[in-house]
Amino acid sequence: MSTRDRLAALRRGLQRTEPRVDAVLVSEDQNRRYVSGFTGSAGQLLVTADAALLLTDFRYVEQSAWQAPDFEVVKTEGFPWPAVAEQAKRLGVRRLGFESEHLTVDQHTRLTAALRETAPDVALAPLTGCVEESRQVKDAEEIERLRTAVLIADRAMEAVTRRLRPGMTEKAIAWELEVEMRQHGAEALSFPIIVASGPNGAMPHHRPSDRAVREGETITIDMGCKVGGYCSDLTRTVVLGEPDATFWGVYDTVLRAQQTCEGRLRAGMTGKAGDALARDVIAAAGHGEHFGHGTGHGVGLAIHEQPRLTYTAAGEATVPEGAVVTVEPGIYVPGWGGVRIEDMVVVGKDRCHVLTTAHKAPIIKMGEDS
Amino acid sequence: MSTRDRLAALRRGLQRTEPRVDAVLVSEDQNRRYVSGFTGSAGQLLVTADAALLLTDFRYVEQSAWQAPDFEVVKTEGFPWPAVAEQAKRLGVRRLGFESEHLTVDQHTRLTAALRETAPDVALAPLTGCVEESRQVKDAEEIERLRTAVLIADRAMEAVTRRLRPGMTEKAIAWELEVEMRQHGAEALSFPIIVASGPNGAMPHHRPSDRAVREGETITIDMGCKVGGYCSDLTRTVVLGEPDATFWGVYDTVLRAQQTCEGRLRAGMTGKAGDALARDVIAAAGHGEHFGHGTGHGVGLAIHEQPRLTYTAAGEATVPEGAVVTVEPGIYVPGWGGVRIEDMVVVGKDRCHVLTTAHKAPIIKMGEDS
Repeated sequence: MSTRDRLAALRRGLQRTEPRVDAVLVSEDQNRRYVSGFTGSAGQLLVTADAALLLTDFRYVEQSAWQAPDFEVVKTEGFPWPAVAEQAKRLGVRRLGFESEHLTVDQHTRLTAALRETAPDVALAPLTGCVEESRQVKDAEEIERLRTAVLIADRAMEAVTRRLRPGMTEKAIAWELEVEMRQHGAEALSFPIIVASGPNGAMPHHRPSDRAVREGETITIDMGCKVGGYCSDLTRTVVLGEPDATFWGVYDTVLRAQQTCEGRLRAGMTGKAGDALARDVIAAAGHGEHFGHGTGHGVGLAIHEQPRLTYTAAGEATVPEGAVVTVEPGIYVPGWGGVRIEDMVVVGKDRCHVLTTAHKAPIIKMGEDS
Repeated sequence: MSTRDRLAALRRGLQRTEPRVDAVLVSEDQNRRYVSGFTGSAGQLLVTADAALLLTDFRYVEQSAWQAPDFEVVKTEGFPWPAVAEQAKRLGVRRLGFESEHLTVDQHTRLTAALRETAPDVALAPLTGCVEESRQVKDAEEIERLRTAVLIADRAMEAVTRRLRPGMTEKAIAWELEVEMRQHGAEALSFPIIVASGPNGAMPHHRPSDRAVREGETITIDMGCKVGGYCSDLTRTVVLGEPDATFWGVYDTVLRAQQTCEGRLRAGMTGKAGDALARDVIAAAGHGEHFGHGTGHGVGLAIHEQPRLTYTAAGEATVPEGAVVTVEPGIYVPGWGGVRIEDMVVVGKDRCHVLTTAHKAPIIKMGEDS
């Protein structure tokens, strides 16, 4: 799917807005990149049925011209809002849709003022998900990039967990994982690596500390990288040597929850139903209150995107065929630690295809490989 | 300055708002961290004259409790807005200020709806810079962290530029810089490293490519790292071996512009006046149209923050004593390349103190050190 196809899809989307808009302003970084190909971090797309403008500043004028050949580049100075208003007037726009989930109240106020001054006939209309909805469904090239990003993370996880030894700090482990991924083709991390050992594992988003890992405790590693802009997301929980009496009950429950979800998730389910596939297993094992986050989320240009597998309002929407989501149930026991196991899957019509290849045998035997 | 002092400063600030608010909602990551100490990436501070709440979700409840002892932690599920409304009602808030530069239109709509349902007596009032203004002026501990982050970047720049040789790709150079900084104590990059060689140097925000650097052309490196949450920002332009005929004229102009600004910038100037110190030198040399970005920006918990040294509207504000800003004029010549030289300085009452220590001799002699 070329950016030309994506631009066409966005234009078709305009026809379905209620109230009907005849132009849309795309401000969010990944949405802008998805539709135009421009990877810079500042700019506005202004798209009507006939015109496609990319407004950006001095820093990005050259780059945007060759990255976004379907767009006419307009150079802005300072705040872009007066230029947006001017172009909207020139193009005869009547109702301009904007991304209400991304435009701040202050930007909206400035844009409103610029329109009042330059183009008083243009009304603003809030839109949600006008690009995000298309971004949910991945095409073949996107899947390829995701697969590569997944594979790099998988191999780094296996290589580094094999080398783990008591006394290494969480920070040192995180750095080894990062180096491993970057040296094998990752262009960046998709988010700061989480290494949470022992009691730290009870915090699902713990940041790596100077704590040294010990034998027998859980070590949860959550990480990913970017390839061609696309993110991977991988979690494994491991134990150095012999785990304690609590471990296997918790680990097996999380693994069963994950396998149940991966085995039954399919296109057309709501995010809530997808979430429940894992959550019910954990609740049945008596750990319901130890699993406070959603089961999964979409992954693509953003590390967290639509659709969501969650029990909150965001889970009302259905999961489309071709979405790529994480499946990452966890159990977090205050004072003890935590277990989370996460794969990425492509959601198909009848079943999921698991992209992740990293193994799930949690015990790292010591003595070998040293 | 403790988080308790910062909380007190925020409360004093509430007294000066117009219209007067009796509570403020702090949603932006760095603002939240600055006031509370909580480093997680999701949460809302709700502060009144007497109460200080931190609303966050399951993932961060444990972490926030020990990082933000001045705050009462309230656990939320899904969107935080109903909980914000409930707490505002409980605390008897009448007018709730929010960060209009950070809250999205959609979040504002949801918060408005939640208040209408739960606490119809609470009015919302947009605020700008209620925390950012305090963040401009750095205390001794912040300067220490900034100084460390600057030093790590300086040393990495000197170490890696010494090793540059023709044939290395921009990407490989960026990775060496990153490893060098991370191995010497950087907790993260402060932004993706820029390495722009030859004609790529005409794009101020070029991303590292597979292009191999060559003898005689400009190589602009812009990078920085984080220490204790605080960012550094450093740019140098170097040439391998003998530069071409254009180089020295451009380099000397940029260096003079930078030195002029560093020599004359002081507290109380507007951002525009500070910007002009460098811009006038470049314009006088006939390169006015080749310097399209601002001369500098504040640096702290964020890589770009207040104050701004720029010729746009953001430059109307004055630069306070104790602000830390970059001074980074540049000249970008399409088809040829670019030169940018950037230091970080602490703005004093009568003069600036330059934090950056990396040297500015641009020629890398080859043959030595190999």
